[in-house]
Amino acid sequence: MSLRRFNELRGEEVAYAVDRQDRTFLPAQEHCPLDPTRPGGPATEIPFPAFEIVVFDNLFPSFEAPQGAAEVVVYTDDHHGSFAGLEPARAQALMWVWRQRYEELGARPDVEYVLIFENRGVEVGTTLHHPHGQIYAFPLVPPVAGLELAADARLGGCAPCALLARELADGERVIHSNADVVAYVPFAARWPYETHVVMREHRASLAECAAEELASLAEALQAVTRGFDRLFERPFPYVMVVHQAPTDGARAGHLHVEFYPPLRTATKLKYLAGCEQGAGTFIMDVLPEDSAVALREAIAFDSQPSRAGHGVAL
Amino acid sequence: MSLRRFNELRGEEVAYAVDRQDRTFLPAQEHCPLDPTRPGGPATEIPFPAFEIVVFDNLFPSFEAPQGAAEVVVYTDDHHGSFAGLEPARAQALMWVWRQRYEELGARPDVEYVLIFENRGVEVGTTLHHPHGQIYAFPLVPPVAGLELAADARLGGCAPCALLARELADGERVIHSNADVVAYVPFAARWPYETHVVMREHRASLAECAAEELASLAEALQAVTRGFDRLFERPFPYVMVVHQAPTDGARAGHLHVEFYPPLRTATKLKYLAGCEQGAGTFIMDVLPEDSAVALREAIAFDSQPSRAGHGVAL
Repeated sequence: MSLRRFNELRGEEVAYAVDRQDRTFLPAQEHCPLDPTRPGGPATEIPFPAFEIVVFDNLFPSFEAPQGAAEVVVYTDDHHGSFAGLEPARAQALMWVWRQRYEELGARPDVEYVLIFENRGVEVGTTLHHPHGQIYAFPLVPPVAGLELAADARLGGCAPCALLARELADGERVIHSNADVVAYVPFAARWPYETHVVMREHRASLAECAAEELASLAEALQAVTRGFDRLFERPFPYVMVVHQAPTDGARAGHLHVEFYPPLRTATKLKYLAGCEQGAGTFIMDVLPEDSAVALREAIAFDSQPSRAGHGVAL
Repeated sequence: MSLRRFNELRGEEVAYAVDRQDRTFLPAQEHCPLDPTRPGGPATEIPFPAFEIVVFDNLFPSFEAPQGAAEVVVYTDDHHGSFAGLEPARAQALMWVWRQRYEELGARPDVEYVLIFENRGVEVGTTLHHPHGQIYAFPLVPPVAGLELAADARLGGCAPCALLARELADGERVIHSNADVVAYVPFAARWPYETHVVMREHRASLAECAAEELASLAEALQAVTRGFDRLFERPFPYVMVVHQAPTDGARAGHLHVEFYPPLRTATKLKYLAGCEQGAGTFIMDVLPEDSAVALREAIAFDSQPSRAGHGVAL
């Protein structure tokens, strides 16, 4: 059962999904529900002995038809893989899967916003280690999308377009780019290694992208996430969120992917505590320019094939 | 050095305090900077052999004069104490300390909002175990205060007054009350054991409260925090935030204290991940009514003197 209540003091809906308390929690690999069902092995959620990418309904949904949807996107049948480590062709295919789900879910009359995301690492509450992401289809336009639309109004045009132009003109926080996509630590980052991966041209959603643009997006996302893993020579936890136009038909948006990594050092977390929760103001220990230097080096290092994979400290 | 930058996509200021990365991190008790300076012992931040309540400037400030302030409030010289465990007279005195700081900081021309809070427990990023809270004086009205003012406008009057009336009429989520103060799990709680402790009469701030009201507030806050510790028979982590009127002179507000506890079970945390960070929508596993039942029992159990302190499981 899922239901929603309006929180007056915060001016936002809260979603209650009370069956989720019992959901599968960090199972051992032999009980992983996202592994393939191998001959002679236990039945998993995926009744095939091997697969590329699988999407299915979340068994513990935060949103349910006809008031939205919740889906799981399994990136690979390799339990020990990662988004960063996918073959480039698989990462590109994932962009097409995201696009197809955005279009199909977004076309439903009960869906006003499609949120594609990945929670990676126990530090951000991952309950299954198998590489996967999630998709929530909202019956409303949620607060963060509302803030982005407000930014468009405040700036008198597409805010991500304007911010990208500023970042390119400055250049100091750009950490990676290709023909179609730019990755940077934003000027007013709220997380030490927050990174935005932004389409150069104005594209409201994945549905508006050409095939080459989707390939470029996959390349940039993989370069950034490989750089993350290189940064502290450990699997780097993050929240990855695809920001796109709402699907209620009336509003603007600019496809970009935001990463919110919880680490401020290799072993210390940034917490959302009194100031962030009670005032809504983020306190940052690290300047975005310094984060950008470290991430740029980590990405550049990793892109040298002769050095990649040797675990050399920066 | 502290500075601020405006985050366009979120429509909010971010504060950078880049010296904080090196701040004291979970020192052993013999190096606790909040302990008294005992004869023959090391010098701490507090040059007295004993004390009741001490306030001093944070050495690692998120806000600095003339653009705000950051202070530390040490509740007791007992390193192993807690807010819940303070003698009632000390807890009442703390209310007067809070009030004095609110008034003095709020009177400064550079200060528009005073945030009094406590981060308790490593789960919310506490870096010092010694019982203490913090005060940030903001050179702006931060987003959460803005949302509360927006709620007033939406409801056509004081939102906390209206919400308190609804909670009292319903009664199902009230967990404790006295002559002047009511504690409840709010109808649209965002955290499993979120609790609001609200003045019955309309009081914009601590400065408007009678002495009996401050005593009642201290009683209710201690009842709630003792109940928290009883709930899972462990020190219960929380973020405690005092919400009051901005001090820019122009705006309304209603004194209440909000607790955001990160636990959803005795050992499992609620994380802010893709949906919360990327959409701004909280997903909850627990209904507020169920949390209220558990907290009401924990508070009632603890208030029976013959049973208190024996560590009997609920």
